[in-house]
Amino acid sequence: MAGTTQDLPPGFSMAPEQARAGAPGGPLAGLRFATKESMDIAGTRTMPGNPDYAEAHVPAADDAAAVRRALQAGAQWVGKTHMHEMAYGITGVNPHTGTPDNPRLPGHVPGGSSSGSAVAVAAGAVDFALGSDTAGSLRVPASYCGVWSLRPTHGRVPGEGMVALAPSLDVAGALAGSAEVLRRATLALLDPAPGDAPPSGVPPVDALPAGSPLADAPRAGAVAPVLKRVAVFRHMPEMGEAARVALQAVAAALEGLGLAPAALDWSDWDDALAAQRTVQYAEFLGEHQPWLDERRPRLGADVADHVAQARALSVAQIGHAISARARHALAIRRLVAGGTVLVVPAAPAGPPSVAALADVEAARRHRTAVLKFNCLAGVAGLPVLCVPAGTAAEPIGIQVIGAPGSDEQLLELGVRLRL
Amino acid sequence: MAGTTQDLPPGFSMAPEQARAGAPGGPLAGLRFATKESMDIAGTRTMPGNPDYAEAHVPAADDAAAVRRALQAGAQWVGKTHMHEMAYGITGVNPHTGTPDNPRLPGHVPGGSSSGSAVAVAAGAVDFALGSDTAGSLRVPASYCGVWSLRPTHGRVPGEGMVALAPSLDVAGALAGSAEVLRRATLALLDPAPGDAPPSGVPPVDALPAGSPLADAPRAGAVAPVLKRVAVFRHMPEMGEAARVALQAVAAALEGLGLAPAALDWSDWDDALAAQRTVQYAEFLGEHQPWLDERRPRLGADVADHVAQARALSVAQIGHAISARARHALAIRRLVAGGTVLVVPAAPAGPPSVAALADVEAARRHRTAVLKFNCLAGVAGLPVLCVPAGTAAEPIGIQVIGAPGSDEQLLELGVRLRL
Repeated sequence: MAGTTQDLPPGFSMAPEQARAGAPGGPLAGLRFATKESMDIAGTRTMPGNPDYAEAHVPAADDAAAVRRALQAGAQWVGKTHMHEMAYGITGVNPHTGTPDNPRLPGHVPGGSSSGSAVAVAAGAVDFALGSDTAGSLRVPASYCGVWSLRPTHGRVPGEGMVALAPSLDVAGALAGSAEVLRRATLALLDPAPGDAPPSGVPPVDALPAGSPLADAPRAGAVAPVLKRVAVFRHMPEMGEAARVALQAVAAALEGLGLAPAALDWSDWDDALAAQRTVQYAEFLGEHQPWLDERRPRLGADVADHVAQARALSVAQIGHAISARARHALAIRRLVAGGTVLVVPAAPAGPPSVAALADVEAARRHRTAVLKFNCLAGVAGLPVLCVPAGTAAEPIGIQVIGAPGSDEQLLELGVRLRL
Repeated sequence: MAGTTQDLPPGFSMAPEQARAGAPGGPLAGLRFATKESMDIAGTRTMPGNPDYAEAHVPAADDAAAVRRALQAGAQWVGKTHMHEMAYGITGVNPHTGTPDNPRLPGHVPGGSSSGSAVAVAAGAVDFALGSDTAGSLRVPASYCGVWSLRPTHGRVPGEGMVALAPSLDVAGALAGSAEVLRRATLALLDPAPGDAPPSGVPPVDALPAGSPLADAPRAGAVAPVLKRVAVFRHMPEMGEAARVALQAVAAALEGLGLAPAALDWSDWDDALAAQRTVQYAEFLGEHQPWLDERRPRLGADVADHVAQARALSVAQIGHAISARARHALAIRRLVAGGTVLVVPAAPAGPPSVAALADVEAARRHRTAVLKFNCLAGVAGLPVLCVPAGTAAEPIGIQVIGAPGSDEQLLELGVRLRL
């Protein structure tokens, strides 16, 4: 391992003596990538932004599944990146390992939890980086650092070998400096879309026998048809002028690609976020309670608060949240049915300064305001293309949210988009 | 209301002085139906198999949404049917309101929780009946009473006006004496499949402008393509000889319709059922804790045990179950991707006698054995056609499980099936 963090490229927490080459001749040949430090790299200790976690766990035997896919596709791995502690925050401020500076706006937070991954991309230290998204952890740093990202459909990138936050919400994905590189990198990570591939052990059957009574059965339930419409919400959480302008610019650019404009009503931002938050608390304890109880690790104030909130939940509160989350997921999936994409800012404004978030109440307000814009995709497991927009002084990412399985189409939209 | 239960048709708990006519000229004109007593009927008290519940709640102002759809489609409503207490059991044995006898096999349990609905259909008292299914509550009584049923895709029939058990699992549906009537009745209940309909407020756009760069985008993520294969599991929970024979008969009949045979590996029956059970406990308390705490109602031994188990859960246990349920749901949906249907018995054997289940341990073993066969669709929200098979002495229902949104195709399979 090479020296201290100070010697490392921007956003990096660790770089190997020698980079690890990808498989020769793959589609990602010539691209360099880094990985969020919550992802296993064989032979190293995984340290998800909390040093005590690393002490409590043995070094990884294998690479994380997403890392393996990038290497097999030919990309070269060059290091690990900083993150928000335990992936449980959206600022990237980390009291244990330091906060990577925002290359677009020095002195401002990079966004999190995939903070170092976004910083490494924004600073040009890598072509792409891997991160994960539970409630906004790819989208918020992409927004604040002005880079591209795709949060894949939940379940389309395997989570094996990645420290979990809330597995019913978590999904791994990539950040990149251009839509073209984002597409190349993400296509290497994705499982076939649900419905595309027969299950393993099943012989492929391309056509029914001629004259089969089912050959003309109606085709039902296609969830990701050709994209037809771009919809904005009539009522959205409070946002700044820069976000409003960026949103209009991306919507207009999508209309320029042939999507029809539409306006939608949905007003469950607060209730959907509340359901997501409670489910996330419970799943976090489900994953981490054993070592938390055994090791009593040092935790930052925000993560310690999450743990305390989680421990105080009643069975009925969690049960109610499970039901509400399922109800909202159904309603949200209906919004993107029939070829509709939704456009929503990834944050109400550009990145706040590190100093501005030192106040606990200010940090809490910031957290709630940002998460509200990001809860649709988390609750419903939807894919989201995050398009860098805004201005040099105020970068803003715009989420383009599609139906489950429409990841490839969203990536294609990104490549064709002209802002 | 007409007299006592003894005067009522088999399975009925209540019949109005005069039947309520459906809308004239609808597709269900000429059909008579009954409703599970957990479904609201305007102007009556809803009593979901527990008399104290009715005391604690005001009479319903409106009909349940599913009931309204059946009436609007022209069917005539003729009464309410018995059910397992709070829908929380699969035998139909009810200590408060009595256990409807099984018309196919007197002295044996009808199956539950939609017990009276299945009995009313099997006895010929109605053409179809409405019920609900959380973990098997349509399929098990259909299996034990030898009638047809469809558990719809989760979310395709609105649950408004129905006493909930666990909303992330609950779905309303129909039971009928023939596949033809089942299809007619269910088509009147179903929402459009996800992906078929644009969201409300969105102008329909049938085609992209000529020359749109998206017109040729690849079509991704179709979840319910034409049915192509019928798959059996290499390893299944223990089942009796009658179930094995019935399973083979239904698989062979499906092959006769042109589906290719396949065999699949999946061995998470125990773990998926455990995750479902814990989620169900938590959601039940989320729904019912207020009146349970306030009224301290009389509960049957099994429901009282469910409540006690639910109250004893830790946050981490529920969190772990939420994660496991999401993981299994993804894996199960992959099994039905690409046009595969799965065939699985709805129970390991025919209905046990009421006497045989008087023993608490025997009842618990029966419950676990049956629920295991039913957990795939609950966990993953999949639609299931339940086909009556087996023999006169041992009726067995066979589940035909499809991808989300394939309800119409499963109904069509039922109509064409020749056993």
